[in-house]
Amino acid sequence: MRVNDKDYRTVWMKKSTVFMIQQNLLPFKFSIYEAANCKQTCKAIKTMIIRGAGAIGAAAAFAIAQGFIEAQAQNDPNYIKQCKEMIENTRPTARNLFYAVDMVYNRAADSENPVETAIKTAQYVADKDASDSRTIGELGNGLIKSGCRILTHCNAGWLAFVDHGTALSPIYRAAEADKNVFVYVDETRPRSQGARLTAWELKQAGIEHKIIPDNAAAHYMSKGLIDMVITGADRIAANGDTANKIGTLEKAIAAKFYNIPFYIAAPTSTIDIKTPGADEIIIEERSENEVLYMDGIDKNGKHIDIRVCSPGSSALNPAFDVTPAKLIKGIITEKGIINPDVDSIKKIIG
Amino acid sequence: MRVNDKDYRTVWMKKSTVFMIQQNLLPFKFSIYEAANCKQTCKAIKTMIIRGAGAIGAAAAFAIAQGFIEAQAQNDPNYIKQCKEMIENTRPTARNLFYAVDMVYNRAADSENPVETAIKTAQYVADKDASDSRTIGELGNGLIKSGCRILTHCNAGWLAFVDHGTALSPIYRAAEADKNVFVYVDETRPRSQGARLTAWELKQAGIEHKIIPDNAAAHYMSKGLIDMVITGADRIAANGDTANKIGTLEKAIAAKFYNIPFYIAAPTSTIDIKTPGADEIIIEERSENEVLYMDGIDKNGKHIDIRVCSPGSSALNPAFDVTPAKLIKGIITEKGIINPDVDSIKKIIG
Repeated sequence: MRVNDKDYRTVWMKKSTVFMIQQNLLPFKFSIYEAANCKQTCKAIKTMIIRGAGAIGAAAAFAIAQGFIEAQAQNDPNYIKQCKEMIENTRPTARNLFYAVDMVYNRAADSENPVETAIKTAQYVADKDASDSRTIGELGNGLIKSGCRILTHCNAGWLAFVDHGTALSPIYRAAEADKNVFVYVDETRPRSQGARLTAWELKQAGIEHKIIPDNAAAHYMSKGLIDMVITGADRIAANGDTANKIGTLEKAIAAKFYNIPFYIAAPTSTIDIKTPGADEIIIEERSENEVLYMDGIDKNGKHIDIRVCSPGSSALNPAFDVTPAKLIKGIITEKGIINPDVDSIKKIIG
Repeated sequence: MRVNDKDYRTVWMKKSTVFMIQQNLLPFKFSIYEAANCKQTCKAIKTMIIRGAGAIGAAAAFAIAQGFIEAQAQNDPNYIKQCKEMIENTRPTARNLFYAVDMVYNRAADSENPVETAIKTAQYVADKDASDSRTIGELGNGLIKSGCRILTHCNAGWLAFVDHGTALSPIYRAAEADKNVFVYVDETRPRSQGARLTAWELKQAGIEHKIIPDNAAAHYMSKGLIDMVITGADRIAANGDTANKIGTLEKAIAAKFYNIPFYIAAPTSTIDIKTPGADEIIIEERSENEVLYMDGIDKNGKHIDIRVCSPGSSALNPAFDVTPAKLIKGIITEKGIINPDVDSIKKIIG
């Protein structure tokens, strides 16, 4: 995607260096982080310089490729295993990370030329993520009518992947096709990924949008001003129940009430066939400080944290909620748009 | 209500001075503002040192009483009319303000002892607000079972009135009756009245509560952790459709989906019989800066504003939404708990 009229991916590798858009500085500053070795790439993943399922997967793939380069120089048979462990410890709950690391590691370890194979496989992981996202966009675009007003929640844009994204990818394709779309961007408290990352992406792409408080979506639905809802997914259960950023459920319920189609956009790798449904999905409870404090920039552009809640009170901070399949009109995957039911999901997983 | 173990109202008059809890400094600082004359009380209303329908009404009543005291000293027949105009210009959309000012003005102007009548009538306005709120609490308490977990949105507590409040009043009575209630407090972006004022009130009253992001209510409902919802109202139409703080609608829709009773608590003065229903209620659009910026205190306790949204993007900020009567289980008024329908509303208005 384009930033300041130049094409970027969220993460890429050149010789033995991994480059990443420094997402923890966005939307206030755009800069590129250079990780010269595996250890530095691990640090970037751990400190959330890079975030988002697909982007983390590709960064991890490049990190293990860096490990193979370094192992060759060091001539230490244990070194690559230490690298693998170090990468796996950065974000232990990120499924894509383990999948990507295993693929690169296994192919390279079995190869006559491990370094070349590792680099090639890591590049394949990144390219596949980008092309799947692009396909989701093309399929999703088929659902978007000209002049469509779309609500999205959180950030499932290209910053969360290598390129294009999931929920935002159909919107980018629709804009390319001059469909004159308008996007309502949920702020997405407590971490404000909508107001920060999604708004930043849409601004860069020149797509008309407005940030709205998380409280406002149903109001615009009641006025007939929202035509469809698209969000990403963190995990899709075998029956179509979908875990995503906290608040997704509330938007899905409101969309149902006003008879507005609600879509999930996600690669098939998000489907967890071993999880039968909502009851088996455990919701991560994050630090209350994400609710009680907020960061931003003051009038001098200095980044600071402030307390925004009553000092004597504490908060709850569930990271995700689960939208039941019956509220979801369809799941837009790279293999097609499917109904959120056991049979359709089994069929697409193959 | 008690603050630091002392009883307070939001506004009161002693001799010719009006005292107000300085609400624009809450929850970070508790202090009392003293308005020595009508002009200073007007300034306090205008700058939102005092806010909330009932509290504004009482402050305006005391302000016009101050006007009568000053008029007597000045011996200028036009002075009291200037005071009335000055008060009415502070918050031109506040219905209670006009009602209170008219009542005090008319009774005092017709009286042989205008100053005494004005002071007495202003005190009556304040006392009536407090006693109506107390009655709402007693009636609402009848709906609350022991161990009840209640969701509330925005601040309809005693800070918005002279004492007791509306949505929070039943909770205070339930706590007095040792019912062991727990309150989920919606943050209520963009102005965070929940996370700031409601949380502050509940903390002072020693009632167990947690602040939650506005996105989280449906999640807790889906887990069976919310037993009822109570909010205040800004305006109730003749058919029971209710305008309240943005986000109320979304909570009401989610409550309906999970079959959780949703109540409005408001004095009958909130009913606007001339407004037939939702379609006739115009929603105020406030400055986008309330969404794009946020204020709070830094680690040194200094109050500052920071930008919290992507710098290139703009926002929408509807102040209210309208919850259709069909989503409301009942309206708790000082004259009884009624169904939200034309006949019940007409009957109670009399």
